[in-house]
Order: sequence, then C-alpha cells, then structure tokens
Amino acid sequence: MSRLRIALIGAGRIGQVHAKNVAQSESAHLAWVVDVDRDAAQRLAERYGAQGTTEPRRAFDDDAVDAVIIASPTPTHVELIVAAANQRKAIFCEKPIDLDLDRVDDALEAVERAEVPFFVGFNRRFDPSFSRLKAQLATGRIGRLELLAITSRDPSPPSTEYLARSGGLFADMMIHDFDMARWLLGEEPVEIFATASTLVDPVIAELGDVDTALVTLRTDSGALCQISNSRRAAYGYDQRVEVHGAAGMLIAENAATNTVSRFTEAGLARDPAPRFFVERYAEAYRAELEHFVQAIRTDGLPLLVGPEDGRQALVLAHAAQEALSRRRAVPVPTRLR
Amino acid sequence: MSRLRIALIGAGRIGQVHAKNVAQSESAHLAWVVDVDRDAAQRLAERYGAQGTTEPRRAFDDDAVDAVIIASPTPTHVELIVAAANQRKAIFCEKPIDLDLDRVDDALEAVERAEVPFFVGFNRRFDPSFSRLKAQLATGRIGRLELLAITSRDPSPPSTEYLARSGGLFADMMIHDFDMARWLLGEEPVEIFATASTLVDPVIAELGDVDTALVTLRTDSGALCQISNSRRAAYGYDQRVEVHGAAGMLIAENAATNTVSRFTEAGLARDPAPRFFVERYAEAYRAELEHFVQAIRTDGLPLLVGPEDGRQALVLAHAAQEALSRRRAVPVPTRLR
Amino acid sequence: MSRLRIALIGAGRIGQVHAKNVAQSESAHLAWVVDVDRDAAQRLAERYGAQGTTEPRRAFDDDAVDAVIIASPTPTHVELIVAAANQRKAIFCEKPIDLDLDRVDDALEAVERAEVPFFVGFNRRFDPSFSRLKAQLATGRIGRLELLAITSRDPSPPSTEYLARSGGLFADMMIHDFDMARWLLGEEPVEIFATASTLVDPVIAELGDVDTALVTLRTDSGALCQISNSRRAAYGYDQRVEVHGAAGMLIAENAATNTVSRFTEAGLARDPAPRFFVERYAEAYRAELEHFVQAIRTDGLPLLVGPEDGRQALVLAHAAQEALSRRRAVPVPTRLR
Amino acid sequence: MSRLRIALIGAGRIGQVHAKNVAQSESAHLAWVVDVDRDAAQRLAERYGAQGTTEPRRAFDDDAVDAVIIASPTPTHVELIVAAANQRKAIFCEKPIDLDLDRVDDALEAVERAEVPFFVGFNRRFDPSFSRLKAQLATGRIGRLELLAITSRDPSPPSTEYLARSGGLFADMMIHDFDMARWLLGEEPVEIFATASTLVDPVIAELGDVDTALVTLRTDSGALCQISNSRRAAYGYDQRVEVHGAAGMLIAENAATNTVSRFTEAGLARDPAPRFFVERYAEAYRAELEHFVQAIRTDGLPLLVGPEDGRQALVLAHAAQEALSRRRAVPVPTRLR
Repeated sequence: MSRLRIALIGAGRIGQVHAKNVAQSESAHLAWVVDVDRDAAQRLAERYGAQGTTEPRRAFDDDAVDAVIIASPTPTHVELIVAAANQRKAIFCEKPIDLDLDRVDDALEAVERAEVPFFVGFNRRFDPSFSRLKAQLATGRIGRLELLAITSRDPSPPSTEYLARSGGLFADMMIHDFDMARWLLGEEPVEIFATASTLVDPVIAELGDVDTALVTLRTDSGALCQISNSRRAAYGYDQRVEVHGAAGMLIAENAATNTVSRFTEAGLARDPAPRFFVERYAEAYRAELEHFVQAIRTDGLPLLVGPEDGRQALVLAHAAQEALSRRRAVPVPTRLR
Repeated sequence: MSRLRIALIGAGRIGQVHAKNVAQSESAHLAWVVDVDRDAAQRLAERYGAQGTTEPRRAFDDDAVDAVIIASPTPTHVELIVAAANQRKAIFCEKPIDLDLDRVDDALEAVERAEVPFFVGFNRRFDPSFSRLKAQLATGRIGRLELLAITSRDPSPPSTEYLARSGGLFADMMIHDFDMARWLLGEEPVEIFATASTLVDPVIAELGDVDTALVTLRTDSGALCQISNSRRAAYGYDQRVEVHGAAGMLIAENAATNTVSRFTEAGLARDPAPRFFVERYAEAYRAELEHFVQAIRTDGLPLLVGPEDGRQALVLAHAAQEALSRRRAVPVPTRLR
Repeated sequence: MSRLRIALIGAGRIGQVHAKNVAQSESAHLAWVVDVDRDAAQRLAERYGAQGTTEPRRAFDDDAVDAVIIASPTPTHVELIVAAANQRKAIFCEKPIDLDLDRVDDALEAVERAEVPFFVGFNRRFDPSFSRLKAQLATGRIGRLELLAITSRDPSPPSTEYLARSGGLFADMMIHDFDMARWLLGEEPVEIFATASTLVDPVIAELGDVDTALVTLRTDSGALCQISNSRRAAYGYDQRVEVHGAAGMLIAENAATNTVSRFTEAGLARDPAPRFFVERYAEAYRAELEHFVQAIRTDGLPLLVGPEDGRQALVLAHAAQEALSRRRAVPVPTRLR
Repeated sequence: MSRLRIALIGAGRIGQVHAKNVAQSESAHLAWVVDVDRDAAQRLAERYGAQGTTEPRRAFDDDAVDAVIIASPTPTHVELIVAAANQRKAIFCEKPIDLDLDRVDDALEAVERAEVPFFVGFNRRFDPSFSRLKAQLATGRIGRLELLAITSRDPSPPSTEYLARSGGLFADMMIHDFDMARWLLGEEPVEIFATASTLVDPVIAELGDVDTALVTLRTDSGALCQISNSRRAAYGYDQRVEVHGAAGMLIAENAATNTVSRFTEAGLARDPAPRFFVERYAEAYRAELEHFVQAIRTDGLPLLVGPEDGRQALVLAHAAQEALSRRRAVPVPTRLR
C-alpha cells in the first residue's frame, strides 16, 4: 500500500508538530505545506521535502493529495473544510471546528455531502495514559462510571491578541475537557453548571473572559462530572483524569519529565511537569496522526473522533457559557440538525 | 498543673476513640463515661478507671469535672450543651451541633451566656497532612489560594437507620468538607451550587437523600472550591485536598497503610488505604483532644475550632440542599443571629 | 488477666520510648524505672506512676515484677540479664546483647538455665511496612527469596564518645540489618564479604571504625543479600528493604512524615523523612512491646525474637569485620556453643 | 550542512532500532544495510530507502559513506572496526567491543592509527532520567559522590545459544553497569568483589555462567559502589540508579509505561514497567544516535563515550569474574597498553 499523501494547512506551532509526525510516519508523505506566511510555508516544506505555497487551492487541486490537515487559525477552518470536502480529500481538522454552531453545521454538511472522512484533533484521546485509563474503564474492573473529575491547567495564558479571538475559555480551552468527558462518560451530559473567576490577569476580565473555571456535568443515568480549568499553573502543564465506579477508581496522574528524585535536608524534590502541550502530548500527536493515516488507508477502519464529536464539544462550551451567565444549571441542547 | 478531668458522653465508636485518647494523654484524666446503654458505659469506664453512668447529670454535677466531650447521637447534643454550659464545663462537641439552625443558635447562646470554651470536633483540621498543607499555604509559597478541591469518600454507606436520621449527605458527611473549605479558603463562601445522584443504594433515594454529590463554592474574592463526596469507595476511605495558588499547588494525598509495593507480572500493587475514619484519623483524634486539653488548661490559649465554625458548616449544608433542589447557585446566608 | 508488671532499666532515649509504651499498653504496668542517674530515673518514674531507683536489685527483688526491659548501655547488659534471669524475670533486652561473644554466651546460658523468656529488641521486625513485606513474602506471591537488598542510613553519626564504645559500625548499627537479613532470608548466611570507607568524619577513622559500608551475604541455597549502611543521610533516617523472588519484587519504601506535595516552578517538593529511629519506629516500638507483653502473659505464645537471634546477628557483625580486614569473603562460623 | 551518510552493519533487533533512528534523524541518512542474511538486509534497507548487501566491504568502499554503525554479533566487531577504520569511517560500535582484551586493543590501535572517531553504544548514558541524574550530581547539590547503587535486571534470560557465546553475565550484561558506574563515579574503581548464583535456570550453571550477581567496587577516594544484576524480573525490565553524597541522595526510579493507577478493594495497581531495552531505552537510542551524528558532523565536538570506555568496562567484567572465582576482592588492573 502506498503512503498517504498529505497537505498541511498551517505552518505554526501545531502545524510543525503534524509536519514532523507525517514525515516520520512510514505510511504517510508530506506533499504540501500551506501558510499565508510564504516563508514559513517554504521553510517547513523544505525541511520535509514537500512543496510550500500560500494557496490552499494548489494543494486541494493536486490529485496526488489524499488528505489535508487543517491547522490554521479557527476562523479559516470552515472555508477550508468545505473546499477540501469538495475536492474529496480526507480531512483532519484541529479543534474547534468553528466558534459558531451554524457555521460548524455548514462545514459538516459539506463533509456529509462529499462523504469524506472527517477527523477532529482531540489529541488527548490518544495520550498513552488517558487511552490506558479508557481501556481499563472498558474492562469493567471498576464498574460503571459514576463520577469523573478532569483537571486541566495551562502553564500561562496566551497573548491578549490570541485571547481576544479565542472564543473564551470554554470554547478554546475547556473544549478538550468536554470531549474527554463525553469520551469517558460514554453518554451525553444533559445538564451543565459553571462558575468562574478572573484571577490570573485583569486583561482577561476586560475581554469579558474568565481564566479559572469549574464546570459540573450530569448525565441521564446520574453520572456526575467536574471539570477544573485554569490558564495558569506555575509548576507546568497539568493534565489529570480521575474516574470512579462502584468497584473502584482510576487515576491518570500528570506526566513527569524524568524519574529522578533528589533527597536533601529540604526533603524530596522532582523536576516540573512537561512545559506545555507540545512536550506533554508529543506521543498523543504521533498516535492520532498514525490513527488518521491508517484509518484513511484502510477502507472501513472507522475514525475514532468524528464530526459529531467536534460539534458536541462546542455545544457544551456554549452551554457552559450560558450557565455561567445565568448562575444556574442549564440543559444541554439536544441535537436538532 | 493538674490533669484536666473529663466526662465523656457517648460510649459508641467515636466515644471509644476519645476515651482512649483521654486515657493516653498525660494532661487529661477520664472521670466519667455516660451512655444510655448502662453496660456500654460501664465497660468503657472500667477500661480506663472512670465511673460509668446513664445519667449525664451525675457528671455535670461533679465539681471535679472540668470538661465534657459530647459524642452521643446528634439529637441529644443541644440539651447536653445547655446543661454542660450551665454547669460551666468546657465543651467538646462532635459535629454537627444539631441539624436545626435555630436549635444550634439556642445551644450557642447558652454557651455564650455561660462564657464556657466550646470546641467542635472537626478532627480533620488536626490531621498531620492537612495541617501541614494549611501551614505550607500560610507561608505564601504558592501564593493566595485561588482554587480548592476536596475529595471525600466513605468506604460504604451507613445503615438505613442511621441514614434516616442523619440529616442527609450535606449535613452528615459533607459538613466536614464545608469546614475544611472554610478553614483553607480563609474567607466565607458567598455562593454555592450542588448537583447529586443516588448511585450507591436505591434505599437512599427512598429516604430522599443522595449518595454522590458535587458542590461548587465561590468567595467574594473569586476563589473557587469544588467538593466531591460519595458514600462509596471500594478501595478504602478516600480523603484528599488540593490547593492552587498563583505560584503553585499543594496536594495532600490519601493516606497509606504501609509503604510496601509488590511488583509482579501484573505490575505494581499496593495495599488499600486505611479502612475508615477511626484508622485514618487516629492521629488527628489524638491531636484534637490534646489541643482541646491544652487550650482549656492554659488560660487564654484560643480553641482552633469555635462555635461559629460549627454553625457555619451547617449553614453551608443547608444552602447546598437548597441549591440542589433549585438547580441553581444560591447565595450563602449572612449570619443574622 | 492482670497487667504485666515491668521494671525498666535505663531512662535514656530508648528507655523513655519503652516507658511510654508500657504506660499506654492496656496489658502492662510500669512498676520501676532504674537508672544510674537518680534524677533521670525519678523523673521518668513519676511521669508514669512508677518507682525510681538507681539500684537494679530493688526491681529484681520485687516479687511483683514480672519482666524487665534492659535499655541501659551495652556493657551493663550481661550482668543485668544474669541477675534478672536468676530472679526468674522475663527479659526484654536491647541490642546488642554484648559486644563479646563469650559474654553473650554466658548471658544466654543463664537465661537457658533459668528457663525465662528472652526477647531481643530488634524493633524493625515490628515496623508495619517491614512486617507487611515479610507477610507478603510468606504468601509465596513473588516466589522463593533470591535476592535481598537492605539500605540503612542514620541521619548523622553519634558522638565520638558513643562511637568509641559502640563496637564499630557492624556491631552497633548494621546489627539491625543482619537481623533483618536473617529474618527475611529464612536461612542462615554462610559467607560474608564487606567493604567500607570513612567518608563522614575523620574522627571515625581515628577510632579505627568506618562510617560507610557495603556487605554481601550468601546462603547455602544461593540466595544473595546486600546491605548498605552509612552514618549520614542529609535527608533524614533512611530505612528500606527490597526483596526479589522468581515471580517478582517487594519493596518497603522509606517512611514519610506526611502526604503533602508542593508543586511550584521548581517542580515537586515533599518534606524530609522522619528524623531518626524514635520517630520512624514509634509504631514498631509500640508493637514490639505489645508483642512481648502478650507473649509473656499468654503461656506458650512464642516470642518472635529469641536469644539465638541476638547472638547470630553479632556473629555476622564479627564476620563482617573479619572480611573487611582480610579483603575477602569469609565463612560465617557455625554455632558451636 | 549535508546529512551524515551511514552504513549499518547488522539488521537484527538492535540494528533495526538504529536504522529507524537514522531514518528519523534530520541530520543523517541511511545509505547501506549490511547483514549476512541477505533478506534481512534487503528488507530493512528497503524500508528506509537504503541499499542492502551481505558484503561490508561494499559499504566501506563507498566514498559517500561517512560513518558505520556496527551492530552485528560481538565476534565480528574487531574485524569490522579495523576495516572501517582503514577506510576512515567514523565508527559507532555496540558493546562489548570484543570479549578478548588483546583483540580489543588491536581494534583500538587501528582506530588510533586511522584517527577516526570511535563511539561505544553505552546507550544508558543517554537515558533522560540517568542523564538528568548525572546533571544533578554535577551541580554539587548532593555533594561529592560517596555511594552508588545500580540495579539492573533483564526480564528473562536470553537463549541458551546466545548465552553460550555471550562471554558470561559480567561481560554481556553487567558491562552496561560497569560503564554506568565509571561514568557516575567520576574516578576509576580500584578494587572489585563479586558474588553470584545460578537461580534462574540450571542450564546457565551448565554453561559455567551465573544469572544473579552482586558486585562491589571501591575507588581510591573511598567511594563505594554496588551493582545488582539478575537475568530475571517478572515485573519487566528493571533499571535503577541511586547516588549518595554528603548532602543527599539522587534516585532514578524505574520507568513506567503510563501514569494510570487503579484503586480497588485489592488496593492500588499499576501496569508493569517497559518490557525490555527496546521499549525502555527508545529515547536513549535516539539521543545516542543524534549525539553521534552531531559530533561527527561538527568538527571538534567530542564524543561522550570513547574507546577507553569500551575497554575499561571489559576490564572490570574480567576482574569481576576473577573476584568471583577467588572469592576475594581483587585489584582492578591499571591500563598498560
């Protein structure tokens, strides 16, 4: 079977991660790198023997391209999805699909119409520890899930510029946790509550956003979930999951950079956690890319994250925002597409 | 300085813990054991060289008694507090003072009028790990508290009989966590939200109670707190606290029964956590008793848990119940006594 | 059954530990405290309602005394053992029995002749973690023991005065580890090798002693054991055991003083280990005392540490010294008493 | 700077690891794969776009080849080293260089004569945790090294065929630990003692070899080192290092495959350690290859493992064998080349 030929849209931080993983995959080949910044596109393309361009169309029109990875800024996603779908490319899209639900639905309709595979980059599902936790949960060893606790803290807030266009903490940051919650709960949340503060930087309040938030979810079966987010963690990126069932608990602890402990008069000391997502989820990004590549190459192998996953995480983000404003639990809207 | 002479009311499980700690303290002496069950009173009294009786009055009327420990069922607390206060005994009362706020206020008025020292048995503040966490927080090393997460799970639900009179999960079980929250937050919660389920035993739903609950608190400064409770933990009593500040995080992990790890083909295995509160908080019970004894013997040494602490934890429990019914965040009532 | 009446010889640090444990035991009573320092004897005696004296004979001659705890300096042990045995007291003797093997044998003959119970204070066997490790080993879950590694490090060297009379690192300090090795190996070491250095304090070299030592043992079945000792551990008392069998490994990690972790920019930090043996082995001292008391009170309940255990640990200490001098493996002498 | 063109000799397990790492390096290119098994060479070559051959000479004669990686069976090393050196290729050789010290010296003379860079594959120095430990040791935070403990256990013995030609446990397996010891001690061991058993498989005894061994080293400054090896670890590959200095201890714990803990009635459970060296040292193999590539490409950048390191580890292995036979400490021979 020949390698999957991939066009990458977006040569920024996450685009570089994908480029490297495509290059190192034995089943994929990086054909194009597209970026509005011609130099960035060219540099990344050259590094892995691809062609660089500022024009997505050149990649979409290339019949030798099997799939596209959309890693450009969020506002560009929908148009790129539609264009790629029309050219019948398999699509790997970074989260969120878009901040506007109607536009998301437009994109997903195009995908549906074209019957192209569509994958959303919820990379955390592919983290070795989280996927091991999910697998252990699936064995039933701790019984049915009753309570889920997700902790997710960035090391520090992004730039004001980024924040201004981010869609807010729920859509930009907690969206990963909403996906994690849906994935682990195994049923849809039906009610949501949110409380939040601005404790990290007053500029975030000026933007009408929050930087510290607690969200509570409830499913029909009565399973409960709490999500804790902050834009700040002095000790490094913090990503933990805890699951309770009738017969026990599973915990995926935060990752460590090494196994060294130093014992002195002051006690025990260990190095900080991985700095941020590029370091922490290096293996997850590799695994998600490999999953996408193998699923596309193998007809019938289903993608583990589909269009509905991308849409429903956004629905939860919007509901959280509403719960926060109204200071009450709100129902999570049923899909009416 | 002579030993503090103590009358113990209640020869049940927690009464036995206190009796042993009084006996082992070098600063206290167990004078009376009072219990409606004459045999139980007698047995426990004999074990430590005290007198047994079914009549609290005998202990209260004994001028040689300096202090009373009230460890009898909750509905008896108020009457005993009033009687002990009137006899000018220092009072150590198990939580909750009462389930009814008006009755609590009656008791506290009697205490105030008699100007007797009054201590509520929030033993967890005296746990070596929680008090170490509090001390580290106080150093400012992690900055001002921004987010607090408390996990508290009993190994299994109490008897239906107990549950029926318990006042419900918030007043019976989470009350400890409300106290812990107030103690660590260092300011009063002003808003509370609660969601809950009955997942452990349908009989709990029949009693109108819940067995799994998530509560969210908010203070004026914007600090957030989440409390997670369950009446079930297959792996043993689970008691953890996590605190975040601008400069870092403190975690008090659950206690272990020993330090032995077994590595086999199956991986690593460790023994379960301590079974329940008697085992887990053995040291905390010793330390709280010693604190009470020393504070009473040393004029002017303040008690670390006072009447308001007992009252305010109950206020939060009631507010949680209301938030749960109304499915919305509710304000925490300001004291109007 | 009445309480076991105990006379304690030695009001020093370890004597105080035993006094407190006797006082707190529900099955024992502290009758006498004997010490050459009259004030020390008196103070400790008063604290627990015992009589103080400088004359061991007064305690030995007291028919109401059932047992003696010998916690005085090593050179006094043999004479005290013989005297106590002659008065038919049950004997609890701190390690080592004596530094001279002939004198040890004299003491043990007196014990044998008098047919009195004799217990050596190898407290570590009663540590909750080490005894749990032993119990897990006994289940056979990791198979027959093949390799044992013991790490034992004091926080800092004792005074020069103490060192000068200590009998050297092997007899004074590693003797505990020799007992641990014999206890866990379940068979006698037949060959021993030792290497050592003076790295902590030159005064130790001047005394002809060492402060850092590695010892290797071998049994007839081929099981191997390594013991690592140092008179210095900046991070607190260090006491660990690791056991390997065909099917796995057991590790008893060092004890912690609390479960609090602090995460900051610098990484994770925990408090140091317990400072020294009084703190670390508090529970072990309680348990060994309780075991001794129960065994003596219950006819036929065997003592878990007997005279041979005290003797054989010393034999190993002497053999280690010889191996160190000769720079070769030496056979461990067979008992020829 | 152009990529380093590499010829790989040996398409077995470790050869495959190197081939993949060369292919993924952005600074290297795999030009040749050489193996006596033509199919194996061809398959591996094709996978990474290299040429396959059974003839080392073809690779050595290729002027476009800058460096060779020798990952074929030990007995072939010397001849390949000499041939590669004569063609002025930079050399990366798997350990041990050879089992015979004279032959090692022949090889090293050829290397010296040709003045080609020579690197020995002591991959463990490049493990993120061990190199972090080394770096922390170098900061002086725990003071000068006084005691070193290395634990190294394979999951299960290799085939009898392999064992028969392995040179024995000391030269085949503990050689890695001898290198680790030299690297961390920072000075040469001057005395060595060894004790060992055959506990895993009687066939190993029949081969005159051992499968469980303890070795003790001593340096001139008095620093001590213990190495513990076994050919069996039911719980997975076990690789740990512990270092003591005057001011503290550093421990590099064994690696974990994920961070998931499962808590049930039975207690805590975690997955086994990585299975064997390919999994455990994946990152170390990558890092050592990258180090070799960068050092060769950058004139003057010294190789971190040189010919003497390969030689001296073997000297220690032979001395251990002698100590084992003679049951005594033996001096480690001074280099007289």
